[in-house]
Amino acid sequence: MIKITFLGTSGSVPTKSRSLPSVAVTYEGKTLLFDCGEGTQRQAMRYGINISSIKAIFITHMHLDHVIGIAGLVRTLALYRRTEPLYVFVPKGEEKGITALLNFDKALISYKIIIKPVKAGEVFEDKEFSVDAIKLNHTVPAYGYVFKERDKLRFMKERCRSLGIKGRMFSELLKRKSIRLKNGKTVRIGEVTYTEKGMRIAYVTDSRPSKDVEKAARGVELLIHEATFADAHRKLAIERKHSTAREAAEVAKSAGAKRLLLFHFSVRYKNTATLIKEAKKVFENVQAAKDGMEIVLQKGT
Amino acid sequence: MIKITFLGTSGSVPTKSRSLPSVAVTYEGKTLLFDCGEGTQRQAMRYGINISSIKAIFITHMHLDHVIGIAGLVRTLALYRRTEPLYVFVPKGEEKGITALLNFDKALISYKIIIKPVKAGEVFEDKEFSVDAIKLNHTVPAYGYVFKERDKLRFMKERCRSLGIKGRMFSELLKRKSIRLKNGKTVRIGEVTYTEKGMRIAYVTDSRPSKDVEKAARGVELLIHEATFADAHRKLAIERKHSTAREAAEVAKSAGAKRLLLFHFSVRYKNTATLIKEAKKVFENVQAAKDGMEIVLQKGT
Repeated sequence: MIKITFLGTSGSVPTKSRSLPSVAVTYEGKTLLFDCGEGTQRQAMRYGINISSIKAIFITHMHLDHVIGIAGLVRTLALYRRTEPLYVFVPKGEEKGITALLNFDKALISYKIIIKPVKAGEVFEDKEFSVDAIKLNHTVPAYGYVFKERDKLRFMKERCRSLGIKGRMFSELLKRKSIRLKNGKTVRIGEVTYTEKGMRIAYVTDSRPSKDVEKAARGVELLIHEATFADAHRKLAIERKHSTAREAAEVAKSAGAKRLLLFHFSVRYKNTATLIKEAKKVFENVQAAKDGMEIVLQKGT
Repeated sequence: MIKITFLGTSGSVPTKSRSLPSVAVTYEGKTLLFDCGEGTQRQAMRYGINISSIKAIFITHMHLDHVIGIAGLVRTLALYRRTEPLYVFVPKGEEKGITALLNFDKALISYKIIIKPVKAGEVFEDKEFSVDAIKLNHTVPAYGYVFKERDKLRFMKERCRSLGIKGRMFSELLKRKSIRLKNGKTVRIGEVTYTEKGMRIAYVTDSRPSKDVEKAARGVELLIHEATFADAHRKLAIERKHSTAREAAEVAKSAGAKRLLLFHFSVRYKNTATLIKEAKKVFENVQAAKDGMEIVLQKGT
């Protein structure tokens, strides 16, 4: 089960109902944070994310509205007496800027902050998942991220039952790759297992629509994509290197994403109706994210 | 009329109900901000403060929880196309730190930000009010501030009526300092006016209780004072150079303040009952500030 929590869904400027960009992905008790706009630590408290469970923070780019919240967050974690290291991913070349921010008031940080420069490709791996970076097309170096649950080996329950495989035999099969049954026959693990493909989530902001994203987000369960502008402001989108809602939908369609969540809306739109309408013309399974929105992905659901 | 709005009342770490320190003082359509913790711009939106009306920001000290919000705020003001200069007051010596923060992502700031180093004494003056800085006693250079409404010359309404002073005669009196009545007698302005003392508000955080504060806050209408700890943690208060609620009350009492509002509470206290109880033993007119609390001061009320 992967839980996605939208902590901030506004672009550039917060509003009463939308905080600045941050999305939490929680998996097996571990949380990854994608971007960390101003107010993220408080949004996390408000929406039930235990900030101590944050293992790594992935910053898309160094515009202030995507990153400044990290300063307060790391300090609060220190006051909470964290000892575990925290990984912070930033576009390569931005190590100095993030370091200055993290050391801003020389707060005594009680744990290690490991700053990792990002280039396109796999940037993080854990036992249960990995994270890839995708080069984006913005006014400053920027990377999107793909969270990838690892593929899992699953036993074919029916077949195992019919062969009499039960109890400790499963762990033995996993360990030895084969097992001898009571009837003397040997069963290899491949005969009674299948691979369950891991689920994937792509997080993309700020960027013009991108072929790299289409490729990296091929078939993802969930594409979270910026939609700063509506069609009426497409010129602005091009000029400021953002995407319209329709363009985000086109990316989702080309990538064959299963579901699209739009966020990072310009405050010029009182609501998201127009954006969603324009996106739906291209891609049906689209919604506007809201602060506090939770999405749970479960295999087979 | 002076309106005080508490935008953030927590200390060090935010909670679901308390944002990081910031207090807005609005007077004659102009707003002064005292401290600017993370999330201040959004708190201002939430609680009806027009951020474009902010003329000056007074930072007590450069600990991150009191200042980081300024980075997002100045950027939002630029996106709102501000042209008017913004004054930012920081303890002398901290000019470089605040400049780095203001220039963090090299956002195009469309207006002038005038950084003013603070020493004890008057630091800001406007037609209708001035602001004094008070040296505090914290772990880093820190200043409290006293907002001072200017004294006003008021006409004695009854006496003016009985002398037949009316209409344009008032402005003539103000201009020439005296006026000749119909009966040939001359009236000097001092005979028909009195001075209405301006109201004052002191904002004090972070600090041990201080004689300088007692002096500067003599007779203030409102003392806003930090109360990080309860009696039980007085040792911690001394060690970390903060105040207990009781100590804040002692300052209010010695200063002869009319009213005390406590804020900047440690998150270790689930509520403020103990803090208020301990403060009340020393000073009766005390309350715990809450986020969004508004206090309106009006002469004669």
